[in-house]
Amino acid sequence: MRELVYLNGWVGSFDDAFISVNDRGFNFGDGVYEVVRVYGGIPFAMGDHLERLEFSATAIKMEMPWSKEQLEMFTMDLLDKSKIKEAMVYLQVSRGTAHRNHTFSPDIKPNLLITVRHVPEISPSMYREGVKIISQPEFRWQMCHVKSISLLASVLAKQRAADAGAAEAVFVMDDGTVTECSASNIFIYKDDALFTHPADNRILKGVTRKYVLEIARGLGIAIKVEPFSFSDMLGAAEVFFTSTIVEIMPVVKADHHIIGNGKPGQLAGRIHDAFTSLRHTGI
Amino acid sequence: MRELVYLNGWVGSFDDAFISVNDRGFNFGDGVYEVVRVYGGIPFAMGDHLERLEFSATAIKMEMPWSKEQLEMFTMDLLDKSKIKEAMVYLQVSRGTAHRNHTFSPDIKPNLLITVRHVPEISPSMYREGVKIISQPEFRWQMCHVKSISLLASVLAKQRAADAGAAEAVFVMDDGTVTECSASNIFIYKDDALFTHPADNRILKGVTRKYVLEIARGLGIAIKVEPFSFSDMLGAAEVFFTSTIVEIMPVVKADHHIIGNGKPGQLAGRIHDAFTSLRHTGI
Repeated sequence: MRELVYLNGWVGSFDDAFISVNDRGFNFGDGVYEVVRVYGGIPFAMGDHLERLEFSATAIKMEMPWSKEQLEMFTMDLLDKSKIKEAMVYLQVSRGTAHRNHTFSPDIKPNLLITVRHVPEISPSMYREGVKIISQPEFRWQMCHVKSISLLASVLAKQRAADAGAAEAVFVMDDGTVTECSASNIFIYKDDALFTHPADNRILKGVTRKYVLEIARGLGIAIKVEPFSFSDMLGAAEVFFTSTIVEIMPVVKADHHIIGNGKPGQLAGRIHDAFTSLRHTGI
Repeated sequence: MRELVYLNGWVGSFDDAFISVNDRGFNFGDGVYEVVRVYGGIPFAMGDHLERLEFSATAIKMEMPWSKEQLEMFTMDLLDKSKIKEAMVYLQVSRGTAHRNHTFSPDIKPNLLITVRHVPEISPSMYREGVKIISQPEFRWQMCHVKSISLLASVLAKQRAADAGAAEAVFVMDDGTVTECSASNIFIYKDDALFTHPADNRILKGVTRKYVLEIARGLGIAIKVEPFSFSDMLGAAEVFFTSTIVEIMPVVKADHHIIGNGKPGQLAGRIHDAFTSLRHTGI
Protein backbone atom coordinates (compact mmCIF):
# COMPACT_ATOMS: atom_id res chain seq x y z
CA MET A 1 0.00 0.00 0.00
CA ARG A 2 1.25 3.44 -0.92
CA GLU A 3 -0.13 6.95 -0.56
CA LEU A 4 -0.19 8.53 -4.02
CA VAL A 5 -0.61 11.81 -5.81
CA TYR A 6 -2.12 12.52 -9.21
CA LEU A 7 -1.24 15.96 -10.57
CA ASN A 8 -2.39 16.90 -14.07
CA GLY A 9 -1.77 13.38 -15.36
CA TRP A 10 1.45 12.74 -13.46
CA VAL A 11 1.37 10.05 -10.73
CA GLY A 12 3.88 9.70 -7.92
CA SER A 13 4.55 10.18 -4.24
CA PHE A 14 3.96 13.30 -2.14
CA ASP A 15 7.72 13.87 -1.91
CA ASP A 16 7.90 14.43 -5.65
CA ALA A 17 4.66 16.33 -6.19
CA PHE A 18 5.15 20.04 -6.86
CA ILE A 19 3.06 22.82 -8.30
CA SER A 20 4.09 26.16 -9.80
CA VAL A 21 4.37 29.10 -7.39
CA ASN A 22 2.11 30.83 -9.93
CA ASP A 23 -0.73 28.42 -9.25
CA ARG A 24 -3.77 30.50 -8.25
CA GLY A 25 -4.60 28.07 -5.48
CA PHE A 26 -1.25 28.90 -3.91
CA ASN A 27 -1.56 32.69 -4.40
CA PHE A 28 -5.30 33.29 -3.93
CA GLY A 29 -6.95 30.20 -2.42
CA ASP A 30 -8.61 30.18 -5.82
CA GLY A 31 -9.91 26.64 -6.12
CA VAL A 32 -12.44 24.06 -4.98
CA TYR A 33 -12.14 20.59 -3.50
CA GLU A 34 -13.79 17.43 -2.25
CA VAL A 35 -12.90 14.72 0.25
CA VAL A 36 -14.25 11.23 -0.48
CA ARG A 37 -14.21 8.27 1.89
CA VAL A 38 -13.33 4.89 0.38
CA TYR A 39 -14.68 1.83 2.22
CA GLY A 40 -13.20 -1.53 1.23
CA GLY A 41 -11.92 -0.09 -2.02
CA ILE A 42 -15.26 1.50 -2.96
CA PRO A 43 -15.70 5.29 -2.83
CA PHE A 44 -18.84 6.26 -0.95
CA ALA A 45 -21.24 8.69 -2.64
CA MET A 46 -18.74 9.52 -5.37
CA GLY A 47 -21.58 10.85 -7.51
CA ASP A 48 -22.63 13.33 -4.83
CA HIS A 49 -19.08 14.55 -4.37
CA LEU A 50 -18.38 15.02 -8.06
CA GLU A 51 -21.67 16.80 -8.53
CA ARG A 52 -20.81 19.18 -5.70
CA LEU A 53 -17.33 19.72 -7.13
CA GLU A 54 -18.93 20.83 -10.39
CA PHE A 55 -21.37 23.01 -8.47
CA SER A 56 -18.51 24.69 -6.56
CA ALA A 57 -16.49 25.23 -9.74
CA THR A 58 -19.47 26.81 -11.49
CA ALA A 59 -20.15 29.03 -8.47
CA ILE A 60 -16.66 30.52 -8.76
CA LYS A 61 -16.88 30.74 -12.56
CA MET A 62 -14.35 28.02 -13.16
CA GLU A 63 -14.80 25.75 -16.14
CA MET A 64 -13.47 22.29 -15.47
CA PRO A 65 -12.16 20.59 -18.60
CA TRP A 66 -12.94 17.11 -17.20
CA SER A 67 -16.25 15.30 -17.08
CA LYS A 68 -17.39 13.64 -13.86
CA GLU A 69 -16.69 10.31 -15.55
CA GLN A 70 -13.08 11.31 -16.23
CA LEU A 71 -12.56 12.54 -12.68
CA GLU A 72 -13.94 9.24 -11.39
CA MET A 73 -11.65 7.30 -13.74
CA PHE A 74 -8.54 9.23 -12.60
CA THR A 75 -9.56 8.59 -8.99
CA MET A 76 -10.25 4.87 -9.41
CA ASP A 77 -7.00 4.43 -11.26
CA LEU A 78 -5.06 6.15 -8.46
CA LEU A 79 -6.89 4.09 -5.82
CA ASP A 80 -6.02 0.95 -7.73
CA LYS A 81 -2.35 1.85 -7.91
CA SER A 82 -2.25 2.76 -4.21
CA LYS A 83 -3.84 -0.53 -3.13
CA ILE A 84 -5.29 1.31 -0.13
CA LYS A 85 -8.76 -0.01 0.65
CA GLU A 86 -9.71 2.22 3.58
CA ALA A 87 -8.78 5.47 1.94
CA MET A 88 -9.38 9.17 1.98
CA VAL A 89 -9.42 10.68 -1.49
CA TYR A 90 -8.79 14.40 -1.87
CA LEU A 91 -9.65 16.16 -5.12
CA GLN A 92 -8.57 19.76 -5.58
CA VAL A 93 -9.07 21.90 -8.65
CA SER A 94 -7.33 25.25 -8.64
CA ARG A 95 -8.06 27.79 -11.33
CA GLY A 96 -4.72 27.36 -13.01
CA THR A 97 -1.27 28.83 -13.42
CA ALA A 98 -0.73 32.48 -14.32
CA HIS A 99 1.33 35.44 -13.17
CA ARG A 100 -0.36 36.80 -10.06
CA ASN A 101 -3.32 39.05 -10.82
CA HIS A 102 -6.72 39.02 -9.15
CA THR A 103 -8.54 38.77 -12.47
CA PHE A 104 -8.20 35.69 -14.63
CA SER A 105 -8.26 34.91 -18.31
CA PRO A 106 -11.13 32.80 -19.68
CA ASP A 107 -8.46 30.61 -21.28
CA ILE A 108 -6.72 29.61 -18.06
CA LYS A 109 -6.42 25.82 -17.59
CA PRO A 110 -7.26 24.42 -14.12
CA ASN A 111 -4.77 22.31 -12.20
CA LEU A 112 -6.11 18.99 -10.94
CA LEU A 113 -4.71 17.35 -7.82
CA ILE A 114 -5.97 14.02 -6.54
CA THR A 115 -4.44 12.29 -3.53
CA VAL A 116 -5.09 8.91 -1.97
CA ARG A 117 -4.17 8.48 1.68
CA HIS A 118 -4.96 6.14 4.53
CA VAL A 119 -8.00 7.28 6.46
CA PRO A 120 -6.88 9.14 9.59
CA GLU A 121 -7.57 7.16 12.74
CA ILE A 122 -10.33 8.49 14.95
CA SER A 123 -10.35 7.02 18.43
CA PRO A 124 -13.42 4.77 19.00
CA SER A 125 -13.72 6.31 22.46
CA MET A 126 -14.78 9.58 20.83
CA TYR A 127 -17.89 7.91 19.41
CA ARG A 128 -18.47 5.95 22.64
CA GLU A 129 -18.09 8.88 25.01
CA GLY A 130 -18.94 11.85 22.83
CA VAL A 131 -16.83 14.96 22.29
CA LYS A 132 -16.65 18.57 23.31
CA ILE A 133 -17.10 21.47 20.90
CA ILE A 134 -16.53 25.19 21.35
CA SER A 135 -18.57 28.10 20.03
CA GLN A 136 -16.97 30.52 17.61
CA PRO A 137 -18.52 33.77 16.36
CA GLU A 138 -19.35 33.30 12.68
CA PHE A 139 -16.73 35.25 10.75
CA ARG A 140 -16.45 33.39 7.47
CA TRP A 141 -17.40 34.69 4.05
CA GLN A 142 -20.96 34.41 2.84
CA MET A 143 -20.42 31.73 0.19
CA CYS A 144 -20.05 28.79 2.54
CA HIS A 145 -22.11 26.66 0.16
CA VAL A 146 -19.03 26.62 -2.07
CA LYS A 147 -16.37 24.12 -1.04
CA SER A 148 -13.46 26.45 -1.74
CA ILE A 149 -9.84 26.17 -0.66
CA SER A 150 -9.87 29.74 0.77
CA LEU A 151 -10.16 28.06 4.15
CA LEU A 152 -8.19 30.24 6.54
CA ALA A 153 -11.25 31.07 8.67
CA SER A 154 -12.02 27.37 9.13
CA VAL A 155 -8.36 26.62 9.84
CA LEU A 156 -8.25 29.23 12.62
CA ALA A 157 -11.53 28.02 14.11
CA LYS A 158 -10.47 24.36 14.06
CA GLN A 159 -7.12 25.22 15.60
CA ARG A 160 -8.84 27.18 18.37
CA ALA A 161 -10.96 24.10 19.05
CA ALA A 162 -7.93 21.82 19.13
CA ASP A 163 -6.09 24.19 21.48
CA ALA A 164 -9.12 24.05 23.78
CA GLY A 165 -9.15 20.26 23.71
CA ALA A 166 -12.32 20.25 21.63
CA ALA A 167 -13.15 18.25 18.52
CA GLU A 168 -14.83 21.05 16.61
CA ALA A 169 -15.71 24.73 16.63
CA VAL A 170 -19.33 25.58 15.88
CA PHE A 171 -20.06 28.91 14.18
CA VAL A 172 -22.67 31.10 15.85
CA MET A 173 -24.02 34.22 14.16
CA ASP A 174 -24.63 37.53 15.95
CA ASP A 175 -28.32 36.67 16.38
CA GLY A 176 -27.44 33.34 18.02
CA THR A 177 -28.07 31.17 14.96
CA VAL A 178 -25.87 28.10 14.66
CA THR A 179 -24.69 27.53 11.10
CA GLU A 180 -22.24 24.61 11.03
CA CYS A 181 -18.82 23.58 12.33
CA SER A 182 -15.40 24.35 10.88
CA ALA A 183 -15.37 21.14 8.83
CA SER A 184 -18.73 19.48 9.48
CA ASN A 185 -22.49 20.04 9.63
CA ILE A 186 -24.29 20.06 12.96
CA PHE A 187 -27.61 18.57 14.09
CA ILE A 188 -29.62 18.88 17.27
CA TYR A 189 -32.42 16.62 18.49
CA LYS A 190 -34.91 18.62 20.49
CA ASP A 191 -38.63 18.28 21.26
CA ASP A 192 -38.69 14.98 19.31
CA ALA A 193 -37.42 16.60 16.10
CA LEU A 194 -34.06 16.65 14.34
CA PHE A 195 -32.92 20.16 13.40
CA THR A 196 -30.18 21.22 11.03
CA HIS A 197 -29.50 24.53 9.27
CA PRO A 198 -31.00 24.86 5.78
CA ALA A 199 -28.59 24.46 2.89
CA ASP A 200 -28.27 28.14 1.98
CA ASN A 201 -25.13 30.27 1.54
CA ARG A 202 -24.23 29.91 5.23
CA ILE A 203 -23.35 26.21 5.20
CA LEU A 204 -21.90 23.52 3.01
CA LYS A 205 -24.54 21.09 1.80
CA GLY A 206 -22.84 18.07 3.31
CA VAL A 207 -22.98 14.68 1.67
CA THR A 208 -23.10 12.91 5.05
CA ARG A 209 -25.74 15.49 6.10
CA LYS A 210 -27.86 14.36 3.15
CA TYR A 211 -27.68 10.66 4.09
CA VAL A 212 -28.28 11.42 7.76
CA LEU A 213 -31.47 13.26 6.81
CA GLU A 214 -32.55 10.31 4.62
CA ILE A 215 -31.82 7.82 7.37
CA ALA A 216 -33.64 9.88 10.01
CA ARG A 217 -36.65 10.18 7.71
CA GLY A 218 -36.59 6.42 7.25
CA LEU A 219 -36.57 6.00 11.03
CA GLY A 220 -39.72 8.10 11.23
CA ILE A 221 -38.00 11.01 12.95
CA ALA A 222 -39.54 14.47 12.46
CA ILE A 223 -37.10 16.59 10.48
CA LYS A 224 -36.82 20.36 10.74
CA VAL A 225 -34.39 21.81 8.24
CA GLU A 226 -34.46 25.26 9.78
CA PRO A 227 -32.15 27.55 11.75
CA PHE A 228 -31.75 26.93 15.46
CA SER A 229 -29.90 28.95 18.09
CA PHE A 230 -26.96 28.18 20.30
CA SER A 231 -29.26 28.15 23.31
CA ASP A 232 -31.57 25.70 21.50
CA MET A 233 -28.49 23.55 21.12
CA LEU A 234 -27.60 23.75 24.79
CA GLY A 235 -31.13 22.65 25.67
CA ALA A 236 -31.20 19.81 23.14
CA ALA A 237 -31.51 16.15 24.09
CA GLU A 238 -28.77 15.29 21.58
CA VAL A 239 -26.24 17.07 19.44
CA PHE A 240 -24.01 15.55 16.77
CA PHE A 241 -21.90 16.70 13.85
CA THR A 242 -21.36 14.96 10.53
CA SER A 243 -18.63 14.82 7.91
CA THR A 244 -17.25 12.47 5.32
CA ILE A 245 -14.36 11.29 7.48
CA VAL A 246 -15.91 11.56 10.95
CA GLU A 247 -19.34 10.28 9.80
CA ILE A 248 -21.60 10.93 12.83
CA MET A 249 -19.98 12.26 16.01
CA PRO A 250 -21.98 12.75 19.22
CA VAL A 251 -21.39 15.99 21.13
CA VAL A 252 -21.73 15.93 24.90
CA LYS A 253 -20.33 19.32 25.80
CA ALA A 254 -20.45 22.78 24.20
CA ASP A 255 -18.16 25.34 25.82
CA HIS A 256 -18.81 24.66 29.51
CA HIS A 257 -22.33 23.33 29.06
CA ILE A 258 -23.23 19.65 29.30
CA ILE A 259 -25.56 18.47 26.52
CA GLY A 260 -28.45 16.20 27.62
CA ASN A 261 -27.21 13.77 30.26
CA GLY A 262 -23.59 14.20 29.21
CA LYS A 263 -23.57 10.94 27.26
CA PRO A 264 -23.95 10.25 23.53
CA GLY A 265 -27.62 10.03 22.60
CA GLN A 266 -29.52 7.05 21.29
CA LEU A 267 -30.54 8.69 18.03
CA ALA A 268 -26.96 9.48 17.00
CA GLY A 269 -26.12 5.82 17.59
CA ARG A 270 -29.10 4.54 15.59
CA ILE A 271 -28.31 6.87 12.71
CA HIS A 272 -24.65 5.90 12.77
CA ASP A 273 -25.57 2.19 12.71
CA ALA A 274 -27.82 2.76 9.70
CA PHE A 275 -25.08 4.80 8.03
CA THR A 276 -22.60 1.98 8.60
CA SER A 277 -24.93 -0.40 6.74
CA LEU A 278 -25.48 2.12 3.97
CA ARG A 279 -21.85 2.93 3.37
CA HIS A 280 -21.02 -0.48 1.98
CA THR A 281 -23.75 -0.34 -0.61
CA GLY A 282 -21.53 1.63 -2.95
CA ILE A 283 -23.89 4.57 -3.41
CA MET B 1 16.53 42.68 -16.49
CA ARG B 2 14.93 39.48 -15.39
CA GLU B 3 11.87 38.63 -13.30
CA LEU B 4 13.00 36.43 -10.44
CA VAL B 5 11.72 34.15 -7.71
CA TYR B 6 13.13 33.50 -4.26
CA LEU B 7 11.72 30.38 -2.62
CA ASN B 8 13.09 29.29 0.76
CA GLY B 9 16.61 30.33 -0.22
CA TRP B 10 16.50 29.13 -3.80
CA VAL B 11 16.63 31.78 -6.54
CA GLY B 12 15.57 31.27 -10.14
CA SER B 13 12.93 31.97 -12.75
CA PHE B 14 9.18 31.45 -12.50
CA ASP B 15 9.40 28.51 -14.89
CA ASP B 16 11.50 26.58 -12.40
CA ALA B 17 9.80 27.62 -9.16
CA PHE B 18 7.65 24.91 -7.61
CA ILE B 19 6.16 24.27 -4.21
CA SER B 20 4.95 21.03 -2.60
CA VAL B 21 1.30 20.12 -3.17
CA ASN B 22 1.23 19.77 0.63
CA ASP B 23 1.94 23.46 1.12
CA ARG B 24 -0.84 24.87 3.29
CA GLY B 25 -1.08 27.94 1.11
CA PHE B 26 -2.03 25.66 -1.78
CA ASN B 27 -4.50 23.55 0.24
CA PHE B 28 -6.02 26.09 2.63
CA GLY B 29 -5.12 29.63 1.53
CA ASP B 30 -3.23 29.51 4.81
CA GLY B 31 -0.74 32.33 4.45
CA VAL B 32 -0.16 36.07 4.36
CA TYR B 33 1.44 38.41 1.85
CA GLU B 34 2.55 41.90 0.89
CA VAL B 35 3.06 43.77 -2.36
CA VAL B 36 5.77 46.44 -2.38
CA ARG B 37 6.37 49.01 -5.09
CA VAL B 38 9.98 49.71 -6.05
CA TYR B 39 10.72 53.14 -7.56
CA GLY B 40 14.11 53.59 -9.22
CA GLY B 41 15.47 50.57 -7.39
CA ILE B 42 14.26 51.70 -3.96
CA PRO B 43 11.34 49.93 -2.28
CA PHE B 44 8.74 52.39 -1.01
CA ALA B 45 7.60 52.06 2.61
CA MET B 46 9.31 48.71 3.04
CA GLY B 47 9.16 49.17 6.81
CA ASP B 48 5.39 49.59 6.75
CA HIS B 49 4.95 46.50 4.59
CA LEU B 50 7.18 44.28 6.70
CA GLU B 51 5.51 45.46 9.86
CA ARG B 52 2.12 44.60 8.42
CA LEU B 53 3.40 41.22 7.25
CA GLU B 54 4.40 40.45 10.84
CA PHE B 55 1.05 41.75 12.07
CA SER B 56 -0.82 39.49 9.63
CA ALA B 57 1.29 36.47 10.55
CA THR B 58 0.69 37.03 14.26
CA ALA B 59 -3.05 37.45 13.65
CA ILE B 60 -3.21 33.97 12.11
CA LYS B 61 -0.92 32.50 14.78
CA MET B 62 1.97 31.98 12.42
CA GLU B 63 5.48 32.43 13.75
CA MET B 64 7.83 33.69 11.07
CA PRO B 65 11.40 32.49 11.52
CA TRP B 66 12.80 35.57 9.76
CA SER B 67 13.36 39.04 11.16
CA LYS B 68 12.21 42.07 9.19
CA GLU B 69 15.89 42.78 8.51
CA GLN B 70 16.35 39.33 6.97
CA LEU B 71 13.23 39.68 4.84
CA GLU B 72 14.48 43.03 3.61
CA MET B 73 17.90 41.56 2.85
CA PHE B 74 16.40 38.68 0.83
CA THR B 75 14.27 41.20 -1.06
CA MET B 76 17.10 43.64 -1.79
CA ASP B 77 19.31 40.79 -2.93
CA LEU B 78 16.63 39.54 -5.31
CA LEU B 79 15.99 43.07 -6.61
CA ASP B 80 19.70 43.45 -7.20
CA LYS B 81 19.93 40.22 -9.15
CA SER B 82 16.85 41.09 -11.21
CA LYS B 83 18.20 44.53 -12.20
CA ILE B 84 14.59 45.72 -12.41
CA LYS B 85 14.31 49.31 -11.16
CA GLU B 86 10.57 49.87 -11.55
CA ALA B 87 9.50 46.72 -9.82
CA MET B 88 6.65 45.06 -7.98
CA VAL B 89 7.85 42.87 -5.14
CA TYR B 90 5.54 40.15 -3.84
CA LEU B 91 6.24 38.48 -0.50
CA GLN B 92 4.15 35.48 0.51
CA VAL B 93 4.53 33.42 3.63
CA SER B 94 2.46 30.26 3.81
CA ARG B 95 2.23 28.30 7.02
CA GLY B 96 4.36 25.46 5.73
CA THR B 97 4.28 21.97 4.30
CA ALA B 98 2.36 19.15 5.96
CA HIS B 99 -0.12 16.44 5.02
CA ARG B 100 -3.49 18.11 4.69
CA ASN B 101 -5.24 18.66 8.02
CA HIS B 102 -7.02 21.82 9.17
CA THR B 103 -5.04 21.96 12.40
CA PHE B 104 -1.31 22.60 12.33
CA SER B 105 1.66 21.66 14.45
CA PRO B 106 3.50 24.36 16.38
CA ASP B 107 6.70 23.04 14.77
CA ILE B 108 5.65 23.64 11.17
CA LYS B 109 8.12 25.75 9.18
CA PRO B 110 6.68 28.52 6.96
CA ASN B 111 7.46 28.69 3.26
CA LEU B 112 8.74 32.03 2.02
CA LEU B 113 8.17 33.18 -1.54
CA ILE B 114 9.47 36.49 -2.85
CA THR B 115 9.06 37.55 -6.45
CA VAL B 116 10.33 40.55 -8.37
CA ARG B 117 8.46 41.57 -11.48
CA HIS B 118 8.09 44.59 -13.70
CA VAL B 119 5.37 46.91 -12.49
CA PRO B 120 2.20 46.28 -14.51
CA GLU B 121 1.39 49.13 -16.86
CA ILE B 122 -1.59 51.24 -15.95
CA SER B 123 -2.82 53.45 -18.73
CA PRO B 124 -2.20 57.17 -17.96
CA SER B 125 -5.66 57.87 -19.37
CA MET B 126 -7.17 56.16 -16.35
CA TYR B 127 -5.67 58.80 -14.06
CA ARG B 128 -6.50 61.58 -16.50
CA GLU B 129 -10.10 60.59 -17.13
CA GLY B 130 -10.98 58.65 -14.00
CA VAL B 131 -12.43 55.17 -13.81
CA LYS B 132 -15.69 53.39 -13.15
CA ILE B 133 -16.28 51.13 -10.17
CA ILE B 134 -19.15 48.78 -9.37
CA SER B 135 -20.82 48.09 -6.02
CA GLN B 136 -20.62 44.60 -4.58
CA PRO B 137 -22.48 43.39 -1.48
CA GLU B 138 -19.88 42.80 1.24
CA PHE B 139 -19.49 39.03 1.54
CA ARG B 140 -15.91 38.59 2.72
CA TRP B 141 -14.83 37.18 6.05
CA GLN B 142 -14.55 39.46 9.06
CA MET B 143 -10.77 39.55 9.35
CA CYS B 144 -10.11 41.86 6.43
CA HIS B 145 -7.44 43.63 8.48
CA VAL B 146 -5.30 40.53 7.86
CA LYS B 147 -3.61 40.43 4.45
CA SER B 148 -4.23 36.73 3.91
CA ILE B 149 -3.99 34.70 0.72
CA SER B 150 -7.51 33.26 1.22
CA LEU B 151 -8.58 35.74 -1.41
CA LEU B 152 -11.32 34.05 -3.38
CA ALA B 153 -13.97 36.63 -2.39
CA SER B 154 -11.74 39.45 -3.64
CA VAL B 155 -10.92 37.52 -6.80
CA LEU B 156 -14.60 37.06 -7.62
CA ALA B 157 -15.40 40.72 -6.90
CA LYS B 158 -12.51 42.00 -9.01
CA GLN B 159 -13.44 39.69 -11.86
CA ARG B 160 -17.05 40.93 -11.72
CA ALA B 161 -15.70 44.47 -11.98
CA ALA B 162 -13.48 43.59 -14.93
CA ASP B 163 -16.36 41.86 -16.71
CA ALA B 164 -18.41 45.04 -16.24
CA GLY B 165 -15.62 47.17 -17.70
CA ALA B 166 -14.90 48.64 -14.26
CA ALA B 167 -11.56 49.15 -12.52
CA GLU B 168 -12.69 48.04 -9.08
CA ALA B 169 -15.55 46.59 -7.05
CA VAL B 170 -16.43 48.43 -3.86
CA PHE B 171 -17.86 46.40 -0.99
CA VAL B 172 -21.10 47.71 0.53
CA MET B 173 -22.52 46.24 3.73
CA ASP B 174 -26.22 45.51 4.29
CA ASP B 175 -26.64 48.82 6.11
CA GLY B 176 -25.14 50.73 3.18
CA THR B 177 -21.68 51.22 4.70
CA VAL B 178 -18.81 51.24 2.22
CA THR B 179 -15.79 49.30 3.51
CA GLU B 180 -13.13 49.17 0.79
CA CYS B 181 -12.53 47.80 -2.70
CA SER B 182 -11.42 44.30 -3.72
CA ALA B 183 -7.75 45.30 -3.69
CA SER B 184 -7.67 48.92 -2.55
CA ASN B 185 -8.96 51.39 0.03
CA ILE B 186 -11.52 53.99 -0.91
CA PHE B 187 -11.88 57.69 -0.02
CA ILE B 188 -14.62 60.23 -0.61
CA TYR B 189 -14.35 64.02 -0.45
CA LYS B 190 -17.65 65.46 0.69
CA ASP B 191 -18.68 68.65 2.50
CA ASP B 192 -15.04 69.78 2.50
CA ALA B 193 -13.82 66.68 4.37
CA LEU B 194 -12.00 63.54 3.30
CA PHE B 195 -13.69 60.34 4.54
CA THR B 196 -12.32 56.81 4.68
CA HIS B 197 -13.42 53.77 6.65
CA PRO B 198 -11.67 53.29 10.01
CA ALA B 199 -8.98 50.61 10.12
CA ASP B 200 -10.99 47.94 11.94
CA ASN B 201 -11.57 44.29 10.99
CA ARG B 202 -13.56 45.31 7.89
CA ILE B 203 -10.69 46.76 5.88
CA LEU B 204 -6.99 46.38 5.28
CA LYS B 205 -5.00 49.18 6.83
CA GLY B 206 -3.44 50.25 3.56
CA VAL B 207 0.06 51.65 3.34
CA THR B 208 -0.92 54.07 0.57
CA ARG B 209 -4.00 54.94 2.66
CA LYS B 210 -1.68 55.94 5.50
CA TYR B 211 0.42 58.27 3.31
CA VAL B 212 -2.67 59.73 1.64
CA LEU B 213 -4.05 60.63 5.08
CA GLU B 214 -0.71 62.20 6.03
CA ILE B 215 -0.55 64.17 2.82
CA ALA B 216 -4.14 65.37 3.13
CA ARG B 217 -3.49 66.47 6.71
CA GLY B 218 -0.45 68.35 5.47
CA LEU B 219 -2.63 70.07 2.87
CA GLY B 220 -4.93 71.25 5.64
CA ILE B 221 -7.83 69.03 4.55
CA ALA B 222 -10.33 67.99 7.24
CA ILE B 223 -10.04 64.22 7.75
CA LYS B 224 -12.89 61.99 8.89
CA VAL B 225 -11.79 58.42 9.46
CA GLU B 226 -15.31 57.13 9.88
CA PRO B 227 -17.79 54.95 8.00
CA PHE B 228 -19.72 56.48 5.13
CA SER B 229 -22.49 55.05 3.02
CA PHE B 230 -22.78 54.22 -0.65
CA SER B 231 -25.23 57.10 -1.07
CA ASP B 232 -22.74 59.43 0.65
CA MET B 233 -20.30 58.27 -1.99
CA LEU B 234 -22.69 58.96 -4.85
CA GLY B 235 -23.19 62.48 -3.51
CA ALA B 236 -19.49 63.16 -2.98
CA ALA B 237 -17.53 65.83 -4.81
CA GLU B 238 -14.68 63.34 -5.36
CA VAL B 239 -14.03 59.64 -4.96
CA PHE B 240 -10.72 57.86 -5.32
CA PHE B 241 -9.19 54.53 -4.36
CA THR B 242 -5.63 53.81 -3.28
CA SER B 243 -3.26 50.88 -3.46
CA THR B 244 0.45 50.18 -3.63
CA ILE B 245 0.47 49.63 -7.38
CA VAL B 246 -2.32 51.97 -8.48
CA GLU B 247 -1.35 54.72 -5.98
CA ILE B 248 -4.28 57.17 -6.18
CA MET B 249 -7.00 56.51 -8.76
CA PRO B 250 -9.88 58.94 -9.31
CA VAL B 251 -13.36 57.41 -9.65
CA VAL B 252 -15.88 59.19 -11.86
CA LYS B 253 -18.65 56.60 -12.03
CA ALA B 254 -20.11 54.11 -9.56
CA ASP B 255 -22.55 51.64 -11.10
CA HIS B 256 -24.63 53.96 -13.29
CA HIS B 257 -24.11 57.09 -11.23
CA ILE B 258 -21.79 59.91 -12.23
CA ILE B 259 -19.59 61.18 -9.38
CA GLY B 260 -19.26 64.98 -9.08
CA ASN B 261 -19.00 66.50 -12.54
CA GLY B 262 -17.85 63.21 -14.06
CA LYS B 263 -14.21 64.29 -14.15
CA PRO B 264 -11.33 63.49 -11.76
CA GLY B 265 -11.31 65.91 -8.84
CA GLN B 266 -8.69 68.45 -7.93
CA LEU B 267 -7.94 66.97 -4.52
CA ALA B 268 -7.09 63.52 -5.91
CA GLY B 269 -4.64 65.21 -8.29
CA ARG B 270 -3.04 67.31 -5.56
CA ILE B 271 -2.65 64.28 -3.30
CA HIS B 272 -1.23 62.22 -6.14
CA ASP B 273 1.29 64.95 -6.95
CA ALA B 274 2.40 65.06 -3.32
CA PHE B 275 2.60 61.27 -3.23
CA THR B 276 4.78 61.29 -6.34
CA SER B 277 7.23 63.60 -4.56
CA LEU B 278 7.11 61.47 -1.42
CA ARG B 279 7.69 58.14 -3.09
CA HIS B 280 11.24 58.96 -4.10
CA THR B 281 12.26 59.85 -0.59
CA GLY B 282 12.84 56.17 0.20
CA ILE B 283 10.54 56.04 3.24
